[in-house]
Amino acid sequence: MQKLEKLYEGKAKKLFATDDPDVLWVEYMNQATAGNGAKKAQISGKGSLNNRITAVIFDLLKARGVDSHFIKPVSETEQLVRRMDMFPLEIIMRNTAAGSFAKRYGVTEGTPLKQPILEFCVKDDALGDPFINNDGLLALDIVTEDELAEISAQARAVNAALLDIFSKIGIQLVDFKIEEGRDSQGHILLADEITPDTCRLWHIADDGQTVEHLDKDLFRRDLGDIIPAYEQILERLEQLAEVEGIERS
Amino acid sequence: MQKLEKLYEGKAKKLFATDDPDVLWVEYMNQATAGNGAKKAQISGKGSLNNRITAVIFDLLKARGVDSHFIKPVSETEQLVRRMDMFPLEIIMRNTAAGSFAKRYGVTEGTPLKQPILEFCVKDDALGDPFINNDGLLALDIVTEDELAEISAQARAVNAALLDIFSKIGIQLVDFKIEEGRDSQGHILLADEITPDTCRLWHIADDGQTVEHLDKDLFRRDLGDIIPAYEQILERLEQLAEVEGIERS
Ligand SMILES: Nc1ncnc2c1ncn2[C@@H]1O[C@H](COP(=O)(O)OP(=O)(O)O)[C@@H](O)[C@H]1O
Ligand SMILES: Nc1ncnc2c1ncn2[C@@H]1O[C@H](COP(=O)(O)OP(=O)(O)O)[C@@H](O)[C@H]1O
Ligand SMILES: [Mg+2]
Ligand SMILES: [Mg+2]
Repeated sequence: MQKLEKLYEGKAKKLFATDDPDVLWVEYMNQATAGNGAKKAQISGKGSLNNRITAVIFDLLKARGVDSHFIKPVSETEQLVRRMDMFPLEIIMRNTAAGSFAKRYGVTEGTPLKQPILEFCVKDDALGDPFINNDGLLALDIVTEDELAEISAQARAVNAALLDIFSKIGIQLVDFKIEEGRDSQGHILLADEITPDTCRLWHIADDGQTVEHLDKDLFRRDLGDIIPAYEQILERLEQLAEVEGIERS
Repeated sequence: MQKLEKLYEGKAKKLFATDDPDVLWVEYMNQATAGNGAKKAQISGKGSLNNRITAVIFDLLKARGVDSHFIKPVSETEQLVRRMDMFPLEIIMRNTAAGSFAKRYGVTEGTPLKQPILEFCVKDDALGDPFINNDGLLALDIVTEDELAEISAQARAVNAALLDIFSKIGIQLVDFKIEEGRDSQGHILLADEITPDTCRLWHIADDGQTVEHLDKDLFRRDLGDIIPAYEQILERLEQLAEVEGIERS
């Protein structure tokens, strides 16, 4: 497999073509951003940690019957993935009120939700990734009814599997963002990344109350260094994968 | 029927108790507000027009099988309605992109929507009436699944009936906001008002393009006097009711 021309440079990753038209070469950068790029920093070690975290998560998901675009790592900071036609969506699942949701509805961060919430935002930096409902997605022709049903079912399945994974390593999965796409054979699949950049991961202290943030909120809210937190997440996930004896890509 | 103590004074109406615990006495004020009360004015004649417009609309809806809280007018500016336990929701139906929707998704105002959009906002001035999706409504326990299904079906039925009504008087129904509540017998019903304060009503000029606003956007956007526009709407609706020979409350 050959790494060819750069196709896209986003806020966290670079995408390269390969000699296989169905395969992309993804490089995880050290860049951290928040507030739609308003806050930006280079954090040494982040690219490598996220490349490894998303890899082990995709493997743990696969063992639970949830497929993704992930093929295999090719270096500390790089991995191969199936090339997809991406839906222009940020697909958010919430189990606990936090972040923009808590603020929007005046709910205390940490309030448990009666049921998981699936939310869509149109992935459009210029518009600020606006929140949209199902009717809006259909009326604006962003997805078809069949696509919406499939994407929604997959998002809920990813949430169920991730809840299982994180509970097994003593972490509260508060919420997360995924992206989905359609591969060259027409299959809708989980793509992009699942890392502490895209999840809220809380460790609840022994008092049963105090939240230790093990995710990008450390950076967003200036709460501390992200590296030790991301290292802890990686370590626990790797350990779980080993205990479960799952096949590593 | 006796008008008793004032129960609530909102941005557009006052509610009074009556000697019947199931009946409220509603007074339509001349006050106009926009931007969640940021802009405010007294517009002579508005209360009377809205009281009469919402009355004829509720009658036209009833003739189309859509029930509401409306009982009957009791003066130029007052009407009796069934007392409801209101859902804390702004229920919005959109047929054409306009207003906050057009802005949010970067769509040109006037773009037709592939299908009508039902949107919910939590009715909470302090939070700025935040947009919420179905999952959010259920997870925050704002409505039950049965209530949501019933409210949604009623909103879509109101839209279908209003589209018919307004098309018959040569007006494009762009979008509107309704509220629903539950009466003392447990029935979910259309309540509040349907007026040019709560609808976007366009008259399309003979060129097939130019929009003449016949609604509160005249006030919101400083486009002109609302009174002649509201008068025109009332006149056409009264005429339609007469032509249809429907029973007036
Ligand atoms: N399998 C895939 N095929 C094609 N594009 C993908 C795939 N997985 C993720 N992407 C896209 O690659 C980009 C990832 O880079 P990232 O730095 O996260 O970008 P962004 O700043 O747009 O979030 C995103 O635009 C994402 O939608
Ligand atoms: N049938 C009803 N029973 C009880 N409350 C109602 C009924 N119809 C409307 N309301 C409520 O009465 C108030 C109407 O006054 P309005 O001036 O429009 O208030 P607001 O500024 O809250 O929109 C609203 O809070 C609305 O929810
Ligand atoms: Mg991204
Ligand atoms: Mg009102």
